[in-house]
Amino acid sequence: MNYNAQKFDKNEYELQSLGSETKKEALLAPVAPKQTTSLATYSLIIFIAIGVKVIQPLTIANAKNEDGSYRFNESTMVLLVEIVKLIFCTCVFAIQYKNTEDDSKSELHNLPFKMSLHFLVPALLYAASNTLVYYGISYINPGLFHVFGNIRILIAGILYRFMMGKKQSDLQWLSLILIACGAVLSSPAPEHANSSDNYLMGLLLLSLMSVCSTSASIYTEKYFKKTQKLSIFYQNIILYLYGILVNTFVVVFLKSEEKGAFDGFDQSGFMVLAAQSAMGVSLSFIFKYLDNIVYVISLTVAMLITAVISMMFFDLDPTYEFFSSMAVITIGIYIFYRSKLFEKFGIQDLVY
Amino acid sequence: MNYNAQKFDKNEYELQSLGSETKKEALLAPVAPKQTTSLATYSLIIFIAIGVKVIQPLTIANAKNEDGSYRFNESTMVLLVEIVKLIFCTCVFAIQYKNTEDDSKSELHNLPFKMSLHFLVPALLYAASNTLVYYGISYINPGLFHVFGNIRILIAGILYRFMMGKKQSDLQWLSLILIACGAVLSSPAPEHANSSDNYLMGLLLLSLMSVCSTSASIYTEKYFKKTQKLSIFYQNIILYLYGILVNTFVVVFLKSEEKGAFDGFDQSGFMVLAAQSAMGVSLSFIFKYLDNIVYVISLTVAMLITAVISMMFFDLDPTYEFFSSMAVITIGIYIFYRSKLFEKFGIQDLVY
Repeated sequence: MNYNAQKFDKNEYELQSLGSETKKEALLAPVAPKQTTSLATYSLIIFIAIGVKVIQPLTIANAKNEDGSYRFNESTMVLLVEIVKLIFCTCVFAIQYKNTEDDSKSELHNLPFKMSLHFLVPALLYAASNTLVYYGISYINPGLFHVFGNIRILIAGILYRFMMGKKQSDLQWLSLILIACGAVLSSPAPEHANSSDNYLMGLLLLSLMSVCSTSASIYTEKYFKKTQKLSIFYQNIILYLYGILVNTFVVVFLKSEEKGAFDGFDQSGFMVLAAQSAMGVSLSFIFKYLDNIVYVISLTVAMLITAVISMMFFDLDPTYEFFSSMAVITIGIYIFYRSKLFEKFGIQDLVY
Repeated sequence: MNYNAQKFDKNEYELQSLGSETKKEALLAPVAPKQTTSLATYSLIIFIAIGVKVIQPLTIANAKNEDGSYRFNESTMVLLVEIVKLIFCTCVFAIQYKNTEDDSKSELHNLPFKMSLHFLVPALLYAASNTLVYYGISYINPGLFHVFGNIRILIAGILYRFMMGKKQSDLQWLSLILIACGAVLSSPAPEHANSSDNYLMGLLLLSLMSVCSTSASIYTEKYFKKTQKLSIFYQNIILYLYGILVNTFVVVFLKSEEKGAFDGFDQSGFMVLAAQSAMGVSLSFIFKYLDNIVYVISLTVAMLITAVISMMFFDLDPTYEFFSSMAVITIGIYIFYRSKLFEKFGIQDLVY
């Protein structure tokens, strides 16, 4: 146990020293420079995550009643998603374990209980976020909710700065603002909310919600990387076990649903279940091998792709505004990664 | 004459060598580093130019009929503006000449005729641009015309690159695109034009128009700076004399107006005349002491200020879109001047 604790401390030390020394790889391979995960693998991870994220809102829209409520029981869905992910990861981990040489087998799941407790934190934060959005949405109209979702990228930048101790240059901060602005500008204009007494309350709850869910993601990233040598499937198993624990507690003690646990759970519900589970697993790859900033940027790209697809399907004329905001987002992403790209390809930053 | 020609060649040489040596001052004091024009003076020039540019569209709107046509004769207005500017600059030049020491007096107006011919070029280009906009506007709807006007900043960047041989960094090109996108996004959405046969023709004419008027501005800048030692008022006198020559030719030989020369020239016409004249003179200061990129950026800032003022007057709710595009424009301007600012204030560009 003591040996393990030391090992993790060393790991943490490596994580921090990395931040200041080999800066150039900090974003593309934030913690495991010795692992030969290639650019192609990273691209595949991002590609899959964006693909799943594009499909996810479509499955959700498909499973909603006309009044915008879900046909299925939301609490059940959250629990089911955790269970499906757990089953999936357990199966893959079993295969992985079998195919690993005997010497290395123990490395795959060498996680002391104390360390595993850190995986409880994101489970609690996600549950808090789910509860907050449940109350927050009643104070605020959906359009504003959507606009607010786009500011998530800024919250992620700020929290990432403090939780991971990762400094960003002025250009990187500005590029995050650009991406957020581009996202606001490319989404349809929200109907103006009536300035009711609850308006501020809604904003407050939504801010808290964003902070909770973003901290959860960053905390997951931090401890997935601190226990980098473990199998990602084993890490997920622990994470999902705690998730099931917390969500069962929520269902049993906190929520009083009118709907029965499996009411209205039809084919569209299964599609939501599949998409949410796939998203959860694909996210874990992003958190372990890439990072949360890549994740929020991918979200924006996924949103753009969704918009382009719906333009094609609904035969809408793309507007100047849409192209302009697409340009703003693209430029924002380029500026964010510019210095890494320049270093990677040995480009000199000329000042004219 | 020969002596003068040599002097100008040397001046040109200085201009080019400057481009590669003292890069940091290239934008703030592009050609005359020895002149002690201070930052305060530059700010004042920009401030006045923006102020005049904010007033100008209001005077024009005030002088239009309900169908959007001008109450005054446009050709007469163009000529009158040139004459008013000429009279103003002649008066100021006379005062300046009187107050200059005898030794330096000749420097103020030491312009060989051959060199002066270069001032004919912008006059011709502006006349071409005025004619093109006259025909182009009939092919295209005003909304699109407005959107197109915002792309001017990109045309300016490209032409500036080729006519002044001034290289820009990738960040500067991108920031010009950002400013243009921000301008498109902050202006009201244009009604969609019917895709008629004339649509492409309209775009072609407007592109040509933009190229003509922007080249005219850049050409003016180039030769105002090549003859830097002359009084700006003397330079303007020559410029406006050629302008009167060319526009008289246009009125007499090309345009067949139905309106009489002074029909409908009321108080609102005088306000247009004053605003246009003030804008012309303030522009000449920008071209001599600053540059065309400052000018197009000022145009965008003026547009934003106009929008904010009209929001205040017409009690409009500022939208998320407007704030977002304002942020995009501001960030664009910051990124454009970032490397100059960093050099000026000795800030290190940290790569995190």
